[in-house]
Amino acid sequence: MENIKVVIWGFGAMGQGMADMLLSKKGVEIVGVCDINKNIVDKKLSVVMNQEINHDVFILDDMDRILESTKPDVVLLCTDSFVEGAYPKIKKIVEHKINVITTAEEMTYPFESHPELSKKMNDLAKANGVTILGSGINPGFVMDLLVLQLTGAMSSVSHIDVKRVNSLSPFGPAVMDEQGVGYTLKRYHERIEKNELAGHVGFNQSVHMIFKGLGLKATKFEQQMEPILTNVDRKSKYASAPKGTLAGINMTSQGYLGDDLFLKMDHPQQIEPQLEGIHTGDYIDIYGSPEIHMSIKPEIDGGIGTIAICVNMIPHVINAKPGLKTMIDLPIPRAILGDMREMIDTFDQ
Amino acid sequence: MENIKVVIWGFGAMGQGMADMLLSKKGVEIVGVCDINKNIVDKKLSVVMNQEINHDVFILDDMDRILESTKPDVVLLCTDSFVEGAYPKIKKIVEHKINVITTAEEMTYPFESHPELSKKMNDLAKANGVTILGSGINPGFVMDLLVLQLTGAMSSVSHIDVKRVNSLSPFGPAVMDEQGVGYTLKRYHERIEKNELAGHVGFNQSVHMIFKGLGLKATKFEQQMEPILTNVDRKSKYASAPKGTLAGINMTSQGYLGDDLFLKMDHPQQIEPQLEGIHTGDYIDIYGSPEIHMSIKPEIDGGIGTIAICVNMIPHVINAKPGLKTMIDLPIPRAILGDMREMIDTFDQ
Repeated sequence: MENIKVVIWGFGAMGQGMADMLLSKKGVEIVGVCDINKNIVDKKLSVVMNQEINHDVFILDDMDRILESTKPDVVLLCTDSFVEGAYPKIKKIVEHKINVITTAEEMTYPFESHPELSKKMNDLAKANGVTILGSGINPGFVMDLLVLQLTGAMSSVSHIDVKRVNSLSPFGPAVMDEQGVGYTLKRYHERIEKNELAGHVGFNQSVHMIFKGLGLKATKFEQQMEPILTNVDRKSKYASAPKGTLAGINMTSQGYLGDDLFLKMDHPQQIEPQLEGIHTGDYIDIYGSPEIHMSIKPEIDGGIGTIAICVNMIPHVINAKPGLKTMIDLPIPRAILGDMREMIDTFDQ
Repeated sequence: MENIKVVIWGFGAMGQGMADMLLSKKGVEIVGVCDINKNIVDKKLSVVMNQEINHDVFILDDMDRILESTKPDVVLLCTDSFVEGAYPKIKKIVEHKINVITTAEEMTYPFESHPELSKKMNDLAKANGVTILGSGINPGFVMDLLVLQLTGAMSSVSHIDVKRVNSLSPFGPAVMDEQGVGYTLKRYHERIEKNELAGHVGFNQSVHMIFKGLGLKATKFEQQMEPILTNVDRKSKYASAPKGTLAGINMTSQGYLGDDLFLKMDHPQQIEPQLEGIHTGDYIDIYGSPEIHMSIKPEIDGGIGTIAICVNMIPHVINAKPGLKTMIDLPIPRAILGDMREMIDTFDQ
């Protein structure tokens, strides 16, 4: 069997990380990279990544040209967070009869937030015999898939609390600004009023994926954003948050069953949480029979984790039935330490 | 769509628990129960379970009769731990063109321990268009599937430690005897020499499932059994372990990659662990990139957990391609709180 062929669309932090990971794996090769960053377009991948590459490629800004000249098994789409932005790109890939795995957060479970585009994507994927999957650590794994997996050991579930506490300290200026780090409360409220702070994207996806996975329908979905004011001076590589300003933002969300609060999500993100005694981690508490209380400390790394999950889902997406799929439709992701081709279902299996 | 139809073969603790759980679920019904226990044969299920049942059935000791008179979608086989004992029953079910989910521990990953019977079962299942699955909490979920799922967020894995610490206190006289609770060291060694103490069944399965899932092949697999001697008097509902006798048994296992110890498993089982400061729990420590350290405290309940997982896998087994499958081939188990029929793939999906 030939190597599995992968094209990467979007060569930012995620795309670069996936390229790096793919180059270390057996049975898979990168056959194309697309980005609009003029500093890297028309350069060789080996030059931009500063490493030797067996089957080197040029980074191009023209996806049509890449899709027509290569025959990839899958495109890793790392350009957008929202369905509206990702859809035209997904459409293009699918119409070339190629599978898509995307880091777009809303694509991990788009059925509630975008029912019409979801139907369009599902029909298009089936008509072209390919699979579309949105994945990542959050949403896509730690606050949803893992929660559902744990309920698999339960005969009944009455309430779920999910909490992800992480540190923003590793992140760069863009994220510092998006999460309001170092803002005064006044500036924070100004930007909220102008709808300029997105905060965490993905609660709609995680909450509905959990409800759907359990066979339930949420009667109400809500989410909130609160500033995390620091009581001490905090400083990270790319930001300062003096006492009294924002160290970050706490996102919360709720899913209701009837009038009951069935599912509660908490996701405080800040720089240097340990300076006020806050330990990072992923916490899942599921009440029912039997109760399950899980913690992962420190939290699963969101960066490497998202890169890894998307690459690790490649064989499952290739094997999957056509259509718009989610993580709950496919076998579990797992680290791929052998030859990736051995995971591909062959006709006589 | 008609209710999903289930037959239970083996009406011990697991079979009874599954019957109880199925009676609380929507879209599924029990159409037959088989057991050889003369106290319950030819009695109505409603009488034996002391609850009202909509579609009541008689407990019979003749599986051929049940399989010929009902048309179940799946048989839950809860009679055996080992492949040798389960195989003829699985063969019978599959030849009637019916899916099987079994609690037989060795069936969770039988390919290394029983390669010829595995091939037979796979061929038989495919020839008859049905699916065979072994499942349970351990093996089948907490020391293997969950480990693999966490590696899904990793780009590389260098070492894995898995530890399950549980209490035997809830268990009855049979388990107390199987785990040597209250034995003197002398009696323990006598029974070991006669090969009468099986200890935990499942390390071969868990270790090889993990290696296979990661795309690796173990160069060496080993397992050991050690007595857990208590330094204080311990007492549970069905056993006493005075100071100096066995409170239980510690099972350990290792999987090697080349000469390196890649995977280490620890499973101490004992009554009243807290009397010597031991906290029960499931612990998974995976080294690589990124590292993941997970704990579930207290441990996932092995009894209700196994019952729940097998029932929760029913729709996935019905949907699956024919053949001998394992938990790593199918979508994640999840609690089924809605109508089970909604999880069945229909032709036009």
